Amino acid sequence: MPSYNAPIRDMQFVLHEVLNVSSELKKFKAYEDIDQDVINQILEEASKFASEVLQPTNQAGDLMGCTRNQDGSVTTPSGFKEAYAKYVEAGWPTLSCDSAYGGQALPQIINTVLYEMLNSANQAWTMYPGLSHGAYECLHSHGTEEQKNRYLKNLVSGKWTGTMCLTEPHCGTDLGLIKAKAEKISNEEYKITGTKIFISSGEHDLAENIIHLVLARLPDAPMGTKGISLFVVPKYQIENEVLSTQRNNLECGSLEHKMGIHGNATCVMNFDGAIGTLLGEPHRGLQAMFVMMNAARLGVGMQSLGLTEVAYQNSAQYAKDRLQMRSLKGPQAPQLAADPIIVHPDVRRMLLTQRAYAEGGRAFTYWIALMIDQCAQEQNANRKQELEGLIALLTPVIKAFITDNAFEATNEGLQVFGGHGYIAEWGMEQFVRDARINMIYEGTNTIQSLDLLGRKVLGDMGAKLRKFGDVVKEFIEEEGVKKEMMEFIDPLNDLVEQVEKLTKEIGLKAMLNHEEAGAAAVPYLRIIGHLVYSYLFAKMARVALNQKGSKDTFYEAKLGVARFYFAKLLPETASLLVLARSGSKSLMSMDEALF
Amino acid sequence: MPSYNAPIRDMQFVLHEVLNVSSELKKFKAYEDIDQDVINQILEEASKFASEVLQPTNQAGDLMGCTRNQDGSVTTPSGFKEAYAKYVEAGWPTLSCDSAYGGQALPQIINTVLYEMLNSANQAWTMYPGLSHGAYECLHSHGTEEQKNRYLKNLVSGKWTGTMCLTEPHCGTDLGLIKAKAEKISNEEYKITGTKIFISSGEHDLAENIIHLVLARLPDAPMGTKGISLFVVPKYQIENEVLSTQRNNLECGSLEHKMGIHGNATCVMNFDGAIGTLLGEPHRGLQAMFVMMNAARLGVGMQSLGLTEVAYQNSAQYAKDRLQMRSLKGPQAPQLAADPIIVHPDVRRMLLTQRAYAEGGRAFTYWIALMIDQCAQEQNANRKQELEGLIALLTPVIKAFITDNAFEATNEGLQVFGGHGYIAEWGMEQFVRDARINMIYEGTNTIQSLDLLGRKVLGDMGAKLRKFGDVVKEFIEEEGVKKEMMEFIDPLNDLVEQVEKLTKEIGLKAMLNHEEAGAAAVPYLRIIGHLVYSYLFAKMARVALNQKGSKDTFYEAKLGVARFYFAKLLPETASLLVLARSGSKSLMSMDEALF
Repeated sequence: MPSYNAPIRDMQFVLHEVLNVSSELKKFKAYEDIDQDVINQILEEASKFASEVLQPTNQAGDLMGCTRNQDGSVTTPSGFKEAYAKYVEAGWPTLSCDSAYGGQALPQIINTVLYEMLNSANQAWTMYPGLSHGAYECLHSHGTEEQKNRYLKNLVSGKWTGTMCLTEPHCGTDLGLIKAKAEKISNEEYKITGTKIFISSGEHDLAENIIHLVLARLPDAPMGTKGISLFVVPKYQIENEVLSTQRNNLECGSLEHKMGIHGNATCVMNFDGAIGTLLGEPHRGLQAMFVMMNAARLGVGMQSLGLTEVAYQNSAQYAKDRLQMRSLKGPQAPQLAADPIIVHPDVRRMLLTQRAYAEGGRAFTYWIALMIDQCAQEQNANRKQELEGLIALLTPVIKAFITDNAFEATNEGLQVFGGHGYIAEWGMEQFVRDARINMIYEGTNTIQSLDLLGRKVLGDMGAKLRKFGDVVKEFIEEEGVKKEMMEFIDPLNDLVEQVEKLTKEIGLKAMLNHEEAGAAAVPYLRIIGHLVYSYLFAKMARVALNQKGSKDTFYEAKLGVARFYFAKLLPETASLLVLARSGSKSLMSMDEALF
Repeated sequence: MPSYNAPIRDMQFVLHEVLNVSSELKKFKAYEDIDQDVINQILEEASKFASEVLQPTNQAGDLMGCTRNQDGSVTTPSGFKEAYAKYVEAGWPTLSCDSAYGGQALPQIINTVLYEMLNSANQAWTMYPGLSHGAYECLHSHGTEEQKNRYLKNLVSGKWTGTMCLTEPHCGTDLGLIKAKAEKISNEEYKITGTKIFISSGEHDLAENIIHLVLARLPDAPMGTKGISLFVVPKYQIENEVLSTQRNNLECGSLEHKMGIHGNATCVMNFDGAIGTLLGEPHRGLQAMFVMMNAARLGVGMQSLGLTEVAYQNSAQYAKDRLQMRSLKGPQAPQLAADPIIVHPDVRRMLLTQRAYAEGGRAFTYWIALMIDQCAQEQNANRKQELEGLIALLTPVIKAFITDNAFEATNEGLQVFGGHGYIAEWGMEQFVRDARINMIYEGTNTIQSLDLLGRKVLGDMGAKLRKFGDVVKEFIEEEGVKKEMMEFIDPLNDLVEQVEKLTKEIGLKAMLNHEEAGAAAVPYLRIIGHLVYSYLFAKMARVALNQKGSKDTFYEAKLGVARFYFAKLLPETASLLVLARSGSKSLMSMDEALF
């Protein structure tokens, strides 16, 4: 059975030494009390919950899965309910929520670190509070005062949970095809009818009420994405702060049997004239939902970061314990029957791949989370817009790059175990299966890449990308003159130049033929991902080099991982650059009938 | 539920048009009756068995898995037993076996094509006859006349099945650590005691007897791999051609719960003084077992080829049916609510990746299977040695390159289905889970790469590799002058030169430090894989170009897939060449304690 210890020191390294989170946040009045001690205390407590309460439920959750009972209720795996009760009792759901509704008003970055831990411990479980937090954000941004008063307090406390009901059997990516209907029945109330599928946390036994955010069409709605409205549809209505005993006309029709995340109830939800209220403007439901989806994309990145870290921890331990063969240099542990497999170069490659993707992903997601906090507080309109641009640009990269890397990383983790990795008991194959969904939901990774290249980069003629380039170039100018940084700055600088050239080329080709963007988008996103990681690993190396001479070997490891990244992972860009330029012809010229 | 139709035309293309199998085989007396009609007839019959009888058992097999009963017997999923009975009844197990024991004495290549189909239909089931065939080959090569007479007839007919019992809890890769003991109790008989794990098909209800080939140590055995002997240990002893009613002292202690191949019984086998006979020389069991393992490595390649093909077929169909979004060029099916997703460039990339890996893998495995037939019949000692060399060189490439590609391909297949790909019902996620084991068993893919680079390439100073290079260069010289072949020959020629240079570089570095070979091996194997595929795709393009002007669009598709391969898959070598040169330092310099 796998184990998990929150990598607190590594988290602190990114928070305090690389990003200087507390001094950055102290600049804002809302966070003037945030200091390293506050953050460290929360990390300590969160880590106990994650390792001691939550992680022990993960494997059982996978084995048992969820059960739909005859009355349509759903029972979560044993231990899930108890873990959720403790989570709520300790106040974890309130962490970064508005104090007007009982929240602790702490910055997102702290919630982000918490979520890394929760996801390492149990991704399927974490989806229950994760989706609730998304629903909270959407209601908080778009709800009327009455809606906020009715729903937010209990979503913040965790007493209730939330969902996003978007997908229908015939449409996932293409929400313009949504068929669910909404009919006005009073000044405020609507009847919602339709079938939604793939509804994570759609029904369960963790909380007394579930607040569904549902996309549906009003009778006068225009066709396509501009005719979709968003509704708040609670499982139980609330009258004067009291739950109705009668259930709204909605139920879980069945549970999906899935490759992984068995502990999360993935429901077919049938709405049969369920009563709800409009959230935001009519026909502008997708815009409102996008608030939630952007947060959800960062959230999916956190899921994959969590899995990468826990896979690394367990495979590193196994590689130190498992004796098999001798080192190519001759016996390293001659007193034993064989050497521990960590002596083998390719085993180390598999371990360091996981570790580098964990460390890179951590720096990346924490950096963006900090930007989200800064952006929310920023008063200067220009600076705010700049931050919004960077967040918009990098959100699809977080979603796709981190989840693709995590699938590779968890697979390397499994492979380190050899045949044992394929056996359920060791828990490594669960990480692979759980990680696989992250490449699909909240917009497939292809959709993310089209969003990045089409909307975020070419959509504003590269303006947001240039802003990001400026951030990187500033760092290069500062550090490029220092000899000890050359090994990191040279390849980073080279990649910046390559990206500038490549982006112009694709932009020109795509003007003549949009399919050129479609063909280039996936490798393009991975190139941008590597640009982000080269920048962040160079920054982390900078911090580690500043500790030269320190007896703390922690910094040696940081340098080692950064060097591994530049030697063994960044070279993927050599192929990606060829592929991003290789055009659409070889894809599009074959007639459909020949497939 | 997925479906499968054997790609007979594609198989015939490789057999008859690319490899000219029947005219090549007719050169040998043993195969003078083999012609295209004979082969085509067998393909037709095999395809019916695969699609109509076997494929319908695949998904149920995954859902039900195997059950160990209280008495230690194992029940396979429903339908498995009936399919096996039909398989035996039709004489499929006898196809390429020695006629002295009831075989049809057909060439291996035909059996290889059969196995592609069986694996597309149901990999877990195919492992039962697959392992039996391995046991047949091992007994046929190393058995005494008495052993052959006792066991072969029923292994050939399929009345009995076989296993390979190698792995123990503390050793998989490192068989030198084996602890199972063998004690002589009479002139011919030995008592075998020990625990074997991960024994595929170790116990089941398909056949009345199971012949285990078991590695164990004799009391006087030297330490390590040179002290391991091989034993034949039947589940039921045979006395005068009659099965003993009393079971040998061996049993399935438990079944493993695995990520995939649920339909195959992966057993912990306890041998508690089980009676067996020595197979081959004492202490030379590993050498005898290697005969079986080489065939098994080709067999694993066939498993992954089968999965690649079936994943392609189902995702291509889905991509034509599923309507979602519009083409980047504007509506292609304006009469429908949305375009079929096959209009999107990245969906086509995912489809063509699968298809190219299926077509490349098919050409590769059939080519090697033909060589195995030629080698077995060849009278000229030089030519025989040359063929042996090529087979030895390319066997680890088949195992690792095809299984890695299949994991990528089945994952692309799943991704084409979006969220539906993650749902068990559609069957795509089963292909991914089944494909995952192929990268591990019969020697992990890292072990294959070390075998290739260390033993097969550097071990003879590149002699075998040069022979392979000669084959490729001969083709380049013939075709390089033809303008229509330039697009294929130029990159092929370039890669040949790169490989020559790279191999010398690694050879020199590895002489000074063996870990340099360990660090380079994995990318090196993939580069050789791409060299093989560039060669074979160029050959296939040659055949297709010869049909220029034909109205048969089949050849257009062959050219389209070849062009896709060169444009979108071969460019991986750009990164691989960097990685193969990037050395061991970034892997080995971090202290073990820092992991």
